[in-house]
Amino acid sequence: MVSFGHLIFYCGRHMSVYIQQLRQQLFALHSNKFFEFTVIAIIVFSALVTGVKTYEINTTLDSLVHILDSAITLFFLFEVTIRIIAEPKTRDFFKNGWNVFDFVIVLASLVPLDGNETVLLARLLRIFRVLRLVSVIPELRILINSLLKALPRMGYIVLLMFIIFYIYAAIGSFVFETINPSLWANISIAMLTLFRISTFEDWTDIMYETMEVYPLSWLFYISFIFLTAFVFLNMMIGVILDVMQREQKQYELERDDNEADEVHTIKQDIDHVKAKLDTLEALLRQSMVNKS
Amino acid sequence: MVSFGHLIFYCGRHMSVYIQQLRQQLFALHSNKFFEFTVIAIIVFSALVTGVKTYEINTTLDSLVHILDSAITLFFLFEVTIRIIAEPKTRDFFKNGWNVFDFVIVLASLVPLDGNETVLLARLLRIFRVLRLVSVIPELRILINSLLKALPRMGYIVLLMFIIFYIYAAIGSFVFETINPSLWANISIAMLTLFRISTFEDWTDIMYETMEVYPLSWLFYISFIFLTAFVFLNMMIGVILDVMQREQKQYELERDDNEADEVHTIKQDIDHVKAKLDTLEALLRQSMVNKS
Amino acid sequence: MVSFGHLIFYCGRHMSVYIQQLRQQLFALHSNKFFEFTVIAIIVFSALVTGVKTYEINTTLDSLVHILDSAITLFFLFEVTIRIIAEPKTRDFFKNGWNVFDFVIVLASLVPLDGNETVLLARLLRIFRVLRLVSVIPELRILINSLLKALPRMGYIVLLMFIIFYIYAAIGSFVFETINPSLWANISIAMLTLFRISTFEDWTDIMYETMEVYPLSWLFYISFIFLTAFVFLNMMIGVILDVMQREQKQYELERDDNEADEVHTIKQDIDHVKAKLDTLEALLRQSMVNKS
Amino acid sequence: MVSFGHLIFYCGRHMSVYIQQLRQQLFALHSNKFFEFTVIAIIVFSALVTGVKTYEINTTLDSLVHILDSAITLFFLFEVTIRIIAEPKTRDFFKNGWNVFDFVIVLASLVPLDGNETVLLARLLRIFRVLRLVSVIPELRILINSLLKALPRMGYIVLLMFIIFYIYAAIGSFVFETINPSLWANISIAMLTLFRISTFEDWTDIMYETMEVYPLSWLFYISFIFLTAFVFLNMMIGVILDVMQREQKQYELERDDNEADEVHTIKQDIDHVKAKLDTLEALLRQSMVNKS
Repeated sequence: MVSFGHLIFYCGRHMSVYIQQLRQQLFALHSNKFFEFTVIAIIVFSALVTGVKTYEINTTLDSLVHILDSAITLFFLFEVTIRIIAEPKTRDFFKNGWNVFDFVIVLASLVPLDGNETVLLARLLRIFRVLRLVSVIPELRILINSLLKALPRMGYIVLLMFIIFYIYAAIGSFVFETINPSLWANISIAMLTLFRISTFEDWTDIMYETMEVYPLSWLFYISFIFLTAFVFLNMMIGVILDVMQREQKQYELERDDNEADEVHTIKQDIDHVKAKLDTLEALLRQSMVNKS
Repeated sequence: MVSFGHLIFYCGRHMSVYIQQLRQQLFALHSNKFFEFTVIAIIVFSALVTGVKTYEINTTLDSLVHILDSAITLFFLFEVTIRIIAEPKTRDFFKNGWNVFDFVIVLASLVPLDGNETVLLARLLRIFRVLRLVSVIPELRILINSLLKALPRMGYIVLLMFIIFYIYAAIGSFVFETINPSLWANISIAMLTLFRISTFEDWTDIMYETMEVYPLSWLFYISFIFLTAFVFLNMMIGVILDVMQREQKQYELERDDNEADEVHTIKQDIDHVKAKLDTLEALLRQSMVNKS
Repeated sequence: MVSFGHLIFYCGRHMSVYIQQLRQQLFALHSNKFFEFTVIAIIVFSALVTGVKTYEINTTLDSLVHILDSAITLFFLFEVTIRIIAEPKTRDFFKNGWNVFDFVIVLASLVPLDGNETVLLARLLRIFRVLRLVSVIPELRILINSLLKALPRMGYIVLLMFIIFYIYAAIGSFVFETINPSLWANISIAMLTLFRISTFEDWTDIMYETMEVYPLSWLFYISFIFLTAFVFLNMMIGVILDVMQREQKQYELERDDNEADEVHTIKQDIDHVKAKLDTLEALLRQSMVNKS
Repeated sequence: MVSFGHLIFYCGRHMSVYIQQLRQQLFALHSNKFFEFTVIAIIVFSALVTGVKTYEINTTLDSLVHILDSAITLFFLFEVTIRIIAEPKTRDFFKNGWNVFDFVIVLASLVPLDGNETVLLARLLRIFRVLRLVSVIPELRILINSLLKALPRMGYIVLLMFIIFYIYAAIGSFVFETINPSLWANISIAMLTLFRISTFEDWTDIMYETMEVYPLSWLFYISFIFLTAFVFLNMMIGVILDVMQREQKQYELERDDNEADEVHTIKQDIDHVKAKLDTLEALLRQSMVNKS
């Protein structure tokens, strides 16, 4: 007699086999070139739909866009679900940063477009679906990874830049506050003003204004521009050299390995020659001993 | 009796000989240094005539310019015809991209200057004759080819840049549309505005305007400027490194070949030494055997 | 009986032992990771207090800031005193540039905040306490040192740039003075105007103004922009190449040393082989002599 | 009796000896460190006098400046004369470009300051005396020489840039002339406008103006900015790579020479070993022949 426990066991086994088959089929589907292309096409299409929404459109088109949007959301949900199921262990899916990135973007675009209050938020979140292009196209993923690698190298330079901005902003807001509060009211507004000066955007208007009260205030601006330009230039040069050196060293290491191999062979050969000569000398001495 | 067929045959043969002679003469003319110089001079002259046309000129000069223009058009037609005939196989002429480029430019400048409606078009098309300088001067042709080679390397960076612009433009046109429709009405106008911001052209005016409604909107602008500057900087560095590595590798390959040659000779010499030593050992052992 | 002299001697010895112990304890405290972190935290906190002072704040907060400021000043004084005492020889403390830098900043922030006249000065001097971050964090110190190293390389380029600016400013103030005295009144104002032009800040407004009087004055501006851009570009390239070459040479020197070592070993081996062969020849000749 | 001819001969000989002595003394003076420093100091002083003249000054100071100016002019004339006389052959003096440069500047500043009409010209010419700093300080001379070396490399890029500007200027002046004649009246004004656009100076104002008539004219501006930026970027990269390669090749050549020397020594040693082995073999064979 088959107990209830057996039944569950068999069902479970049957289920697990079924799931495994499904998993393999889904993985095959997911790895399919055509499916990949479809995903990219739908991401681009989704971006275009987002773009269309920014134009003033009549009601018919608007409702069409609405339906399309729901369809795209469903497709993305479907695609992410497939990828999660296709993964042998669900945990592994979330170990990959790009998968988490995809999952969050798809989840975020589930916020409904209907509620009056959340319309803007829902629309904004849907825009980020374009970012899925980065996670889908491998070349872009490599590019982003290499850009992220460049970040830490810039860390201390950015800190130095921040210190320079902070000091100049503090000086500026102490000294120039009464001249133009909209530019120098407090340290945060002054930092924004300094960022504007560092992009050369109408910076002379700001300077001429303060020079009427403090004729020497051009020193403040010119020294700030020189300092930031100098630090920025050095950062750029530093990053270029840093990347170049790493690549150079890696390349030379490979070459040196080859050269080292060849030199090693030559050394071994010469050791061989030396051993041979020792043998010859021994033989010769022996022959002389024999003779005498 | 000579049939009509024979006549045609002889004529054809005579013709083909004649054409071949003409072809050789034209090829000689075309390869002639003086002719090349004349072509360059006339292209430059044609550019000057185009330039003169942009000034307000009296009727006498205008008609002179008109005649000159026709003469230049005829000369260019004549020159391209010569080059087509001079080519042994007419198809080969169109296989070269620069020839097609020349042919299209010359053909385009055949649009008559008289018809009232097409005057502007005809004038615009005549401007592009200056571009023939590129196809005629070999150094410029090499330069353009090397510029075109740099394009694909920039491809994915441009795509990434476009994604960044698209997302910011979508956000901008959703959020700032009501503040200033002339800058943020829809996604395409917003992208133009963002391009303007990326060139730092009066970008603070745009920022201050939106900061009155959304005081934190400076985050939008500053993050955008940092992102684009960072990606652009990395693109530049990437392209520099890319070109440098290729040149470096090619150079080192050549050098390595030379070194490899020398090391190879040393190895052969040592092998020779080892063989010699083996012979010596054999001889010595033989002499000892003989003795005993 | 113990004389007074003995007493002083013992006291002095006791004192010197006590001071030495204190010195070691202070040195231990100063080198303590936790103490270092506290110093950094208090510098950052001091910067934040400086920042808060730029905002309009009520009286309660203002007096709190005042107390905090005094506390920070005392802490910094305490920390520098510790470091001076901890140093075995007080002179050595002032031999290190960064220590002098710290000492001056701490001393400068002792100017009291109360006196009405010196309030602004005292506030400004307190801002520079943020700079202590640079002397406390080793990575920033290294960065600044490497930036200072880049300065002399730029020296002659800066001199050349100054000569260009001086000549153009002299010409500008002679020729354009009557057109707009606020831009070209004398050579120093003209140099400021030229610096503005070199940052492309509304430079066409200046040009269009003078072109109304001197239609060819665009030559002045365009040539100036080209010259400065060209010299600046070359400076940048020069600095990049300069840094790169030094690093490259240092790297290759190290590698060459290794290679030279290997080649040297091979040479020694071959010398060994040659000596051996000489021995063999001698032996062989001797055996032949013996035989005959 | 001494004839008149003899007298002239002796006088001539006496004179030539005297001139030679003077020449040597002048050369010694000219090469003197202190004299060199005096020349530099007077050039800098002359620049300061030029600078003072741009300020509004009272009559006393003005006449003082006038006297100083004459003194400086006389000193420069004196210095150049010395250098011409000190040169063994006067022709050699003018063979050096920097000498000619000095001579022309000194000559040009001889135009008197008094004549009302030539005052401006005389003043302008006196400004260029600052340039003598370049010819006097050797480091600046080297710098200028290396800058001049960079020019030809940029030649074809500048030509290409000019072609791009010419075509866009021609299109612009044909199409936009009626919209704003002050910007697009003819090809030369249009090229100035395009240069302004390439410096991003209020370029959007120009664009928005034409977009009211031709809504698609943004294509004209964006494509122009991209083209010029792309070509400029490539020029910069090209120049960097060009300089770097030359330096790299020169450096590697030197290194390769050293390596080649070492490898050559090893080869010679091995040849020596081979010869020795041949001798040994011959000896051994001989000994065997002798024995049998």
